[in-house]
Amino acid sequence: MGVTANSFNSVSLDPPMVLWSLARSSRSLAAFTHSQHFSVHILAQDQDALSNQFARSGADKFAGLTLECGAGGVPLLTGCAARLQCRTAFQYEGGDHIIFVGEVVAMDRSDAPPLVFQAGRYAVATAKTAVQAFSAEAQDDDASFSENFTGYLLARAHFQFYSQLRTHLQQHALSDTEYFVLSVLLVREGRSIGNFNERFSYTGHQVTMQLIARLEVKGLLRTVGPAGQQLCHLTEQGRAVTLRIIAAAKALEADMLARLGEWDAVALKNLLKQFILHTDPGLAHPWSE
Amino acid sequence: MGVTANSFNSVSLDPPMVLWSLARSSRSLAAFTHSQHFSVHILAQDQDALSNQFARSGADKFAGLTLECGAGGVPLLTGCAARLQCRTAFQYEGGDHIIFVGEVVAMDRSDAPPLVFQAGRYAVATAKTAVQAFSAEAQDDDASFSENFTGYLLARAHFQFYSQLRTHLQQHALSDTEYFVLSVLLVREGRSIGNFNERFSYTGHQVTMQLIARLEVKGLLRTVGPAGQQLCHLTEQGRAVTLRIIAAAKALEADMLARLGEWDAVALKNLLKQFILHTDPGLAHPWSE
Repeated sequence: MGVTANSFNSVSLDPPMVLWSLARSSRSLAAFTHSQHFSVHILAQDQDALSNQFARSGADKFAGLTLECGAGGVPLLTGCAARLQCRTAFQYEGGDHIIFVGEVVAMDRSDAPPLVFQAGRYAVATAKTAVQAFSAEAQDDDASFSENFTGYLLARAHFQFYSQLRTHLQQHALSDTEYFVLSVLLVREGRSIGNFNERFSYTGHQVTMQLIARLEVKGLLRTVGPAGQQLCHLTEQGRAVTLRIIAAAKALEADMLARLGEWDAVALKNLLKQFILHTDPGLAHPWSE
Repeated sequence: MGVTANSFNSVSLDPPMVLWSLARSSRSLAAFTHSQHFSVHILAQDQDALSNQFARSGADKFAGLTLECGAGGVPLLTGCAARLQCRTAFQYEGGDHIIFVGEVVAMDRSDAPPLVFQAGRYAVATAKTAVQAFSAEAQDDDASFSENFTGYLLARAHFQFYSQLRTHLQQHALSDTEYFVLSVLLVREGRSIGNFNERFSYTGHQVTMQLIARLEVKGLLRTVGPAGQQLCHLTEQGRAVTLRIIAAAKALEADMLARLGEWDAVALKNLLKQFILHTDPGLAHPWSE
C-alpha cells in the first residue's frame, strides 16, 4: 500500500518523530492503521510521475518499480531525495483524517533536489539569497531602468556567459555569427544562407555570403550547389574546431552552474524554458530543418 | 506570543483543520497550551525579515508591526500570503513537541507568492511545467549542444526579449549599440567613449566615434569638451526618444512576465540575479560612474 501525501511534517528531534495524515475514506486506511511501520519518501524533482502514480487509487501502484525492503518489511522506493523508515508511535483523530505519528528508526538521503508541490502544481524551489547587491544604486522609477528590469537581467546573464565563451572563439579567430553557423551545422549539415538567417535573425546577427566565404577560406566550411543556392557543410577541420569550442562551452557551463548550486541550476533552466515557451513569437527550433 | 514554525500542515477538510507543533522547551508553550485560539500566517516571499524576527526568542516580537485582531483576540499580522484563524481542537503528544490541531474558523489570502524554506534557506518555488516541448528533438551527447544547454537558454531568452524591443528601436532608426549608449546616458550624463566601452565590451558591441557622431547628427546626443576627450550628453529630443523606448520596454516586460505568472516572474528575476552575482567576472555596474 502506498499513497501520495502532502501532509508530511517533522515533529520531534528526541526521539526523532514525523507525522502525516490520511483520509478516513482512503482505501488504504486499514493497512496503515493496522501496520506497525510505514516509510516516508521525500520525492526528488524528477519524480512527478511517481507522485501521480501513487495519487491514483486502485491497481498495483508498485508494479514495475525497483523496491528495497525497509524496517518491518515495508517497501522502499529508490531515487528519492530522502527516505524515512518509521515505527508507528501514535494515531490521532484529526477531523476526517487520521494523524499518524511515527518514530524514525532509519533514514537516508541523496543530493537530488526535492519535488515541491505549490498552489496545485509541481514546482522546484530556488534559494532566495544575496541579491542585496542589486538594489543599492538602482533607481526604480518610470524614467529609467533599474537592475530589477527583466530585460537587463537577461541581457547581463547572457552576455556574462557569452563573453567567457568568446575568449575561446577568439582563439580560432571566429566572430559570434561565424560560430553560430558552425554550431548549427554540427547538428544538421546542408543548410542554406536563407536557412541560417531564418534561424538567427531574431538575434540581430546576419549571415552573409561574405561570412560564408570567410569560413570557406579558413577551411572550416565548404559549399555545394550552384551560386545563389549553395548548401553549407562542415569540413573535417570545421567539425574539429566546433567540437573543441563546444567542449569549452560545456566546461564553462558546468563551472557556472556549480557556483549557482545544483538545485538552483535546475530551477534556472526550468524557468528559462518556461519564459522562452511563454514568450516565443514562433521562432524556428535551432535543431529543426 | 508568536513563533516561526515550519511544522504547519493541513489535516482535515470537513471540519477544516490544520496542525502545527511546538517544542515543549519553548518559552511560548504555556501561552499556546492555555489559549483557546491561535492564528497561522503563511508568509509572503518578501517576509523573511518577519520570519527571522519571530524565530528569535525574547523581547516583544510584535513591536512596530501593524496588527489586526482575529478570533479569540489573537493578533493577526498583515501582508501575508494567507492567514488562518483557528480554535484549538486537540493537543497531542509528539515526543519533545506538542502537536496543536486547530479548527479553522476564518481565513483570508492574497496573491502574494509564499515564502519557502528549504534545506535551511529561504526560497521561492517555481512551477515545473510544460517543458516537454524542449526535449523532443534535442540530442544530448558530447558532440553537440542540446536545448538543455544553459548558454543556449540564456541566449534564446535574451534575444527573444530583445528582438521585440528591437522593433521599437527600428522605429527610431537606432541600432542596439546606439540604444545602449542613450539608455546609459539617461541614468548618468557626461560619459566618455572609453566609459561606454568599459561598460559594454562584454556584450561584444563597440562604441565608436562614428557611432557617437551619428547620434549627434540625429539630434539625440551632444558632446562637450576637446576632441578625443568629449563627454556625451542627451539632447532634449534624445531624452524624449529614450524615455519612449524605455516605456515600451517596460510594457513588453509586463506583458512577458504576466504570461509567465507573478510567482515565476519573481523566481526568474531572483535566479538571474544569483547567476549574475555568482558568475560576475568583475564588470562595471551600469549605474556606476
